Amino acid sequence: MRMRKKKWADPFIESNPQFVIPDPQAYKGKWKEKFNKDILHVEIGTGKGDYFINMATMYPDEAWLGIEKDHSCGAVAAKKSIDANLANQLMIIDDASELTDWFDNKEIDVIHLNFSDPWPKKRNSKRRLSHNSFLKKYYDLLSDDGQIILKTDNAKFFEFSLVELTHNNFSLENVWVNFRQEEHPEDAITEYESKFISLNQPIYRAIFVKVIK
Amino acid sequence: MRMRKKKWADPFIESNPQFVIPDPQAYKGKWKEKFNKDILHVEIGTGKGDYFINMATMYPDEAWLGIEKDHSCGAVAAKKSIDANLANQLMIIDDASELTDWFDNKEIDVIHLNFSDPWPKKRNSKRRLSHNSFLKKYYDLLSDDGQIILKTDNAKFFEFSLVELTHNNFSLENVWVNFRQEEHPEDAITEYESKFISLNQPIYRAIFVKVIK
Repeated sequence: MRMRKKKWADPFIESNPQFVIPDPQAYKGKWKEKFNKDILHVEIGTGKGDYFINMATMYPDEAWLGIEKDHSCGAVAAKKSIDANLANQLMIIDDASELTDWFDNKEIDVIHLNFSDPWPKKRNSKRRLSHNSFLKKYYDLLSDDGQIILKTDNAKFFEFSLVELTHNNFSLENVWVNFRQEEHPEDAITEYESKFISLNQPIYRAIFVKVIK
Repeated sequence: MRMRKKKWADPFIESNPQFVIPDPQAYKGKWKEKFNKDILHVEIGTGKGDYFINMATMYPDEAWLGIEKDHSCGAVAAKKSIDANLANQLMIIDDASELTDWFDNKEIDVIHLNFSDPWPKKRNSKRRLSHNSFLKKYYDLLSDDGQIILKTDNAKFFEFSLVELTHNNFSLENVWVNFRQEEHPEDAITEYESKFISLNQPIYRAIFVKVIK
């Protein structure tokens, strides 16, 4: 969802460099050291940050790095996260196409994709975060038992992703076509998700693991 | 769905050996010759036969062999099919666990699984028609570019099948989590399916292809 541009976003981001990392390439290969944690989660597209903050709260012993390219959304997420005062979160507010500049091979344990922009038109399929051009990068950056956890309300994006990942060296570990039909206390609800749950629309979710070649 | 036992079923089956093949092992390796067609479709679990008959009508140049273990259901399907008087259909009314006795390796082009019994309890998972014990047989019996087309209303059975097939030498070619949201004139509606469509419940469908080792 596009958010109305917030004038305070850029000044806020710039005045919080300890949280919104301005030079992520400086930590390439050193993120776990920086966080002082053994497990690194990366959410690509935090939106306003509900999932990111709730997961970091639920899993305090693991590191949570949020990436959001939209400055206004990212600033909202960063502000909420700073207010929550968690020791295991940081953000990058920039375009995820730079991913390989920021992380070493096998540095990430779990990549989270929540309600990513489905880019429904075929000519825009390369922009989908589950397009094979991204998957090649994720594959390299994920640890040997690394996972991608994908959640969406968009049936077409989900179908595309299931085929695209299983054709590009990821194995389907688990899948749900109506994820919120049962309780899932292990997983936080995003701001989008609560809307779809209240509309009684299905949430799709899948966990993929790297196929070791 | 279990059907009330029909007394006329067995006599009907026995009196139509030209349609309900009593000795399928006799045609092992010779089904395409028997049908005089190049493409062999096998539906495992025809139920009352709506899909089986409609698909055979829609694809008259291909052979359609229906398997149903329930004698009453099978007899209903056989009766409708005989009445429809199509030249490209035959049935086997017997348990599909005998599959490898009836077909040669690579003899089948497409296996159709429609609204198979989901056997929801874990201890019964081996009975599911998408359990790996069946998949090993399907793999051998399917031609090199052979497909499995699976359709169901049961979310848990669908999720199980997606994982089970992609872990057992089948590649996900295409998937729909709400198949009847769009028109699909290429695919016939089963008797179950029309009920779920009228209830506005999603139909799940996937097409898998053999991974050549």
